[in-house]
Order: sequence, then structure tokens, then C-alpha cells
Amino acid sequence: MKEFVGYRCSICNAEYDAGQVIYTCPLDSGNLDVVLDYESIRSKYHIEDITSREEPSLWRYLPLLPVADPGGEGTPLRMAGWTPTYAPTRLAEKHQIKRLWIKDEGRNPTASFKDRASAVVVARAEQIKAEVIVTASTGNAGAALAGMSAAIGQKAVIFAPKSAPPAKVAQLLIFGAQVILVDGNYDEAFDLTIEAAQEYGWYCRNTGYNAFTAEGKKTAAFEIWENVLLEMGSLQKPLALFVSVGDGNIISGIHKGFKDLQALGWLEQMPKLFGVQSEGSAAIANAFFAGTEKIKPVSANTIADSISVDLPRDGVRAVRAAVQTGGAYLTVKDENILKAMAEIGQAGIFAEPAGAAAYAGMLKALETGLVSQEDPILVINTGSGLKDIKAAMQAVKEAPVIEPSMAALKKHLQQNKAR
Amino acid sequence: MKEFVGYRCSICNAEYDAGQVIYTCPLDSGNLDVVLDYESIRSKYHIEDITSREEPSLWRYLPLLPVADPGGEGTPLRMAGWTPTYAPTRLAEKHQIKRLWIKDEGRNPTASFKDRASAVVVARAEQIKAEVIVTASTGNAGAALAGMSAAIGQKAVIFAPKSAPPAKVAQLLIFGAQVILVDGNYDEAFDLTIEAAQEYGWYCRNTGYNAFTAEGKKTAAFEIWENVLLEMGSLQKPLALFVSVGDGNIISGIHKGFKDLQALGWLEQMPKLFGVQSEGSAAIANAFFAGTEKIKPVSANTIADSISVDLPRDGVRAVRAAVQTGGAYLTVKDENILKAMAEIGQAGIFAEPAGAAAYAGMLKALETGLVSQEDPILVINTGSGLKDIKAAMQAVKEAPVIEPSMAALKKHLQQNKAR
Repeated sequence: MKEFVGYRCSICNAEYDAGQVIYTCPLDSGNLDVVLDYESIRSKYHIEDITSREEPSLWRYLPLLPVADPGGEGTPLRMAGWTPTYAPTRLAEKHQIKRLWIKDEGRNPTASFKDRASAVVVARAEQIKAEVIVTASTGNAGAALAGMSAAIGQKAVIFAPKSAPPAKVAQLLIFGAQVILVDGNYDEAFDLTIEAAQEYGWYCRNTGYNAFTAEGKKTAAFEIWENVLLEMGSLQKPLALFVSVGDGNIISGIHKGFKDLQALGWLEQMPKLFGVQSEGSAAIANAFFAGTEKIKPVSANTIADSISVDLPRDGVRAVRAAVQTGGAYLTVKDENILKAMAEIGQAGIFAEPAGAAAYAGMLKALETGLVSQEDPILVINTGSGLKDIKAAMQAVKEAPVIEPSMAALKKHLQQNKAR
Repeated sequence: MKEFVGYRCSICNAEYDAGQVIYTCPLDSGNLDVVLDYESIRSKYHIEDITSREEPSLWRYLPLLPVADPGGEGTPLRMAGWTPTYAPTRLAEKHQIKRLWIKDEGRNPTASFKDRASAVVVARAEQIKAEVIVTASTGNAGAALAGMSAAIGQKAVIFAPKSAPPAKVAQLLIFGAQVILVDGNYDEAFDLTIEAAQEYGWYCRNTGYNAFTAEGKKTAAFEIWENVLLEMGSLQKPLALFVSVGDGNIISGIHKGFKDLQALGWLEQMPKLFGVQSEGSAAIANAFFAGTEKIKPVSANTIADSISVDLPRDGVRAVRAAVQTGGAYLTVKDENILKAMAEIGQAGIFAEPAGAAAYAGMLKALETGLVSQEDPILVINTGSGLKDIKAAMQAVKEAPVIEPSMAALKKHLQQNKAR
């Protein structure tokens, strides 16, 4: 793609040509933003050229992505993104929210948001002829890389903490990736992955560290723009967008997507981005509250494993996503995450804890007046609840077991009624 | 829908008006086929009126369904069906199959084929103003009913064997259904559900017993017709379609779909339907092999819980689906099901054991010459592998655990290479 002109460091603003660097800024290790030639894109495409494309996946936005078409027709790689945006009427009524949407990223091929990043990194790997892609992951990013790689026969190596939920590890293995569990946390897996990539010449997909992850994630912003903002005409008030935050790369990627649209003159009003962290893993929220971009590591402990991170790898840009859009950060307790899982479930949407965290944060923002019921609100569910059954079972009451007879059923129903 | 004129018993051919019966034939308890007025449908619609509809779900086929539009815009109910059909090139090459497709039903809202039946039953329940829908389920059908019901605030009661995989039970509970586990098998749950429906005036969704389940499932045939048969133009040879069989209702529903299309004059060539059962749960295959429609119960025991059934409730029609289309039945061993899970996984598709069984059956059919590599072949994966992690872990080698250091990694990779 000719419009991919290079990178800009998110810390020192140093600029690099597309071929000059691979991962982070050589000067200060800052994460790099991909720089696009918006003038050139604008001269080639109108909004309708994008929205009329017949590709029901994130690849409909190829003209705005810094990669070439990866092929893979007829495979799951081709089906990443373009997830449904639900309008759960009864949840909206319950909280008297005028307009509420939930974008369900659990409907991606490997059942999480991370398919977006992995699909675009796989496309990049193909272009630079990488033999092996490696990533550290709490589970979802790895499953996404393993699945997207399997789709087109690309080799993948995944490092995950041995504490990753069994469903996520099973996914990695079924997709045929080489999986190495580390007796440590995500942060240790992250550092080891970078070392291993250097040692063995593997292409490293690590979140944030690899600039193409945010480029993949920005496609969620494009879909929200196309399916909600354009669809609804003028919302009058800016959309309040809630998303859970661990490493900070999803909120940064979404912010990048909206900034791309703004630079193209295609966005009427920038949405306000609200990042939601678990109280037990709140390094980025802490920085936001302190009014700084300096991220201090924490000792993470939360039921929401996907956002359980000691040292966020995309913290600076994640803080800015809220600050620059007039959004904010919120923290939620594990018990509220579990309550949110049960509440969203009653609309037929099964979210993993990290996904439900965003919804819990939205309720807190309503309570504390950060947003009002008049604001148009969109919550992103970042992954399927099937990924973490143990957590789901903590969100609900266990089912009773009875003998398979009418007598036993009648007794059970009577006792239940009496309670 | 005016074209829904009534029912015909699949055993004695007795016909009933739409309002005359609710479930099975009053004369012999045979399952009922929904009778449509094909003349009237044909006079109203051309193929293009269906295929040009902008509804990316099974509801695009509403003109061919015996229910009214259930509403539910912006909910998962509206997103059932319209699952991707993958063309896994490397799997095809491995077995030298000329044209191979895998239709991934795990991409439905609750991650299984059963969303189709439940969506249409929920629409029917709405029309007859049923207060409560009840079903027996090995897990998937229940999760589908619970999810589709939750989407529009319909009450649902689910009876499942207490041995159902945890992920399926968690789904039921998260969707807010009233769940009752029985200390018995699926067959006992099935009978208890019918009794309970009678006692409490609940609307019973039980598979096969309720004629609308097959009507929902037939939409998969419509999608295969639209996305493969119409898309490919003439296939020359009939499509060989492989699907796993438990109760027999999926293969019966798919058969009904193709028969509908044939009656409308819209189908060029009837696909051959191949039913695949586990050796440990082969009641329908046994009848097929014996050349009879009489189904003798077995004592089911297989890793593929979704198709583990002692007494299939739609056996007669399931036998006919293969006989009348020139297809056949096959049985597969659990070990081959596990091998198939791992093989499909390497194309980026994560199937539950029942889904992988269909693929294992296809490989056996190739080996035994029931189909040839020249035949166009489509395999249906009936559900997501995330539904049964325990089974998935039996299909793969466990991942190694290492210390998070380069020294440990180097040692591990060397040892691994040495083997």
C-alpha cells in the first residue's frame, strides 16, 4: 500500500521510513504510530467506495490499512472483524439509557477482539516474508494469532503464562501453534518473547511493541463509524464508547482508527473514549487519575485475565485516547464484573470477564455522572464467555440436580417457589 | 405466513391443518413435516427475491418459513444462521479432494447449529403467545433456546443431563434460563420435558417432537444452496454433504430444506446426504445398515456428547434423508473424532467433537470409496470447540511449561529438536 509512508514515535515524534525500523523507536523505545498519506487516500477514495465494498470483514477497510491484501479467501483469516453491533433494548430500558449498543467481538473467528490485530500482523508477516510469527499472550491474542496463522499455513509460536484459562490454551494447541507456557506472568512472557524473536529471527507480534497490532485494532473504530455513526446520521451528542483496558492497545488502536477518519475528513464528531480497568489491574487508570502519562507497574490480580497486566505495554497512548477525546478512565471491582456478565447474558450475549468489565464501567460512569442517560453509549465486549467458563460459573447460581421424574420436578418447583 | 398450510405425518402420511395439532401425529406419534403451499410461494417469489435480501441471517429465508417475522432487530435472535462456508485449501490438498468446503456452525450466536431451530421455535412461540418454552438438551439446543429467548425476553426452561459439558451449562445459566439438571441421560430428560410441558402448559421445543425444529434447521440447506450451489454454477456431480447425527433432526431438517427447494423448482441437483454417527451411539446408522426404518435404542457412549443419544427422536426421517438422496451412513471411532478435531484445527477451525465427527466420516467415506476425490464435498461443523475443552485437550499434546528465561527456552527447543 503506497499510502503507508512510515512511522512516528508516540513519545519523541521522531519519524521513520517504512523500511527503516521494525518495532519500537530506536531512540527511546516508544511505540510507533503508523503514518499514512491521507491526502493520497482521499484523492483515491470517497466514503461510499469503502462502505459499498462487499467484503463482510475488516478487509473492507484495506484502503486504510498499511498492508497488502493477504489473500486467504475462503479461510477464517478472511472472516475477521465485521462483528455484530447489538441494540439490547431491555438493558437500555433497565438503566433508562436512550441509545445503547453492544459490539460483540466474541463473534470473531477465534472469539475475541484480538483477531483484528493478528489478521493484520499476519498480512504484514506475509509481505516481509516472515517464516515464524511469535507472540506473548494472556490467551486471546495467542489464540487469534494461532487461528489466523493456521488459516493460511503460517508458522506461529505462542508464549503464555501457565495460568491462562484452559479454553484459551486448548485453542492455541488445536490451531497447531507451537505453545510454550511460562511459569510466570504475562509480563515475563512478553519480555522473553522479544528476546526469543531477536535470537531466532522470528517476527514478533507483541501487542503495542508491534505497530501493526494497533492498525488491526483500529478497524473496530471503522465498523463503529460505518454501522453506528453513519447509520444513525447525526447523533447530536458524541458517542460515549466504553472498552476494557489491559495493555492499552485496544483503546489506542480504536483511537487511531477515529483519528484516521478525522484526518480524512470522514468523521463528524470524535467519540469520547472511556477506558475501563479492573481495580486489581489499574496501572493506566492510575496514571490517568494522577494526570500523567507515566505508567507505574502494579501487581495485577483480577478475575478478568485478559486485562490482568502488571506493566501495560501501550500505556502512554492509552492515557491519551481518553484525555484527547474528552473521555476518562474508570476502575471496577471483580464483583461488578461478574454482575455485568450475568446482566449482559440476559440479553443473549455471553461475555468473558474483560468484556463485561467495560459494561460494568459504563454503569459506574452513569452512576457517577461521567455520562448521562441522554448520551449515545456503545460498549465493546472484547471476547466470548466460552473462553472462561470458570469465571462464568462464579457469575451465576449453580443449577439444581433432580431425579428424572415428575415427582422430583414438582417437589423442586414447589420448594423453589416457597423460597 | 399464508403458505403454511399444515402438517403431514412422516409415518402414516395423515394430514392436519396448521391449527389442528401441536406436536406429533395423534394416530401414531410420528414426527410431523410442515406442509407449505409451494405454488403460492412460487407465484410470489423468484430466486433473486430471496438471494438479494439484505438480511445476513437465516431470516433472509422468511418467505420459506412457517412463521411470521419475530422482530428482535438488533439482538442475537436476528443474527442466527448465515454462517461462513470455508474452503480449506490445505486440507483439500492433503486428501487430494478437488473441491472441499466446511460450513462452520460454531459461528452462530450461541456457537452451534441449534440456534437455527431455536430461533424459529422462538418465532413460533411468539405467534402462539407461549409464556414459557421448555426443552430437553444435551447442551447445545438448550444454550441456543436460552440465548435466542434471552434476546427477546422470552422465558425458557431447560432440562439437561447433569453430565453435560460445563461450558454448555454455564451458557444456559448466563442466558438467564431456568436450568434443571437431571440425574439421568438425555433420553430421560427428553421424556420428562414432554410431561412437564403438558403439566404446566409450557411450549415444548424438543427436537423432532416439535416440527418447527426441522424448519429452522432446513435454513442450513438454503445457505448451502445459495453460497455453494448457486455460487459455483453447475457442480456437474451432486454435492456430497457430511453431517453428524445424534437425534437425526439436523440431517432431516437439511433434507427438508433441499426438498423445499426442489419442490419450488429452484434446485438443480439434490445433494447426497451422508450421516455420520459415533460407533458408540449408532442407532440410526444401525437401522440404515439393516435396511430398515425401525430404530432400536442403544446404550450410547461417546466423547461426542452432542450426538450421544440412546433413542434418536427423529430416526425415521434421518434414515430416509440418506436413502432418498443416494447418500449413506457411516460410523466413526472416538479416536478418529479426536484426530479430526486436530486436523480441522490446523485450518483455523475449532470444532466440537460432534462437528469433527462429520469430518472423520468424510475421510472414512473417501477411504472406503463411498465418495471420490472428484466429488464436490461439504462438511458441516455443528458447533464450536470452545463448548468442550476437555475433549479438545484429548485431541492435542499438552503444552510444555518452562521458566521465563532464555536459558530455559533454549534448553527446551534443543530437547524438542533432539526428539
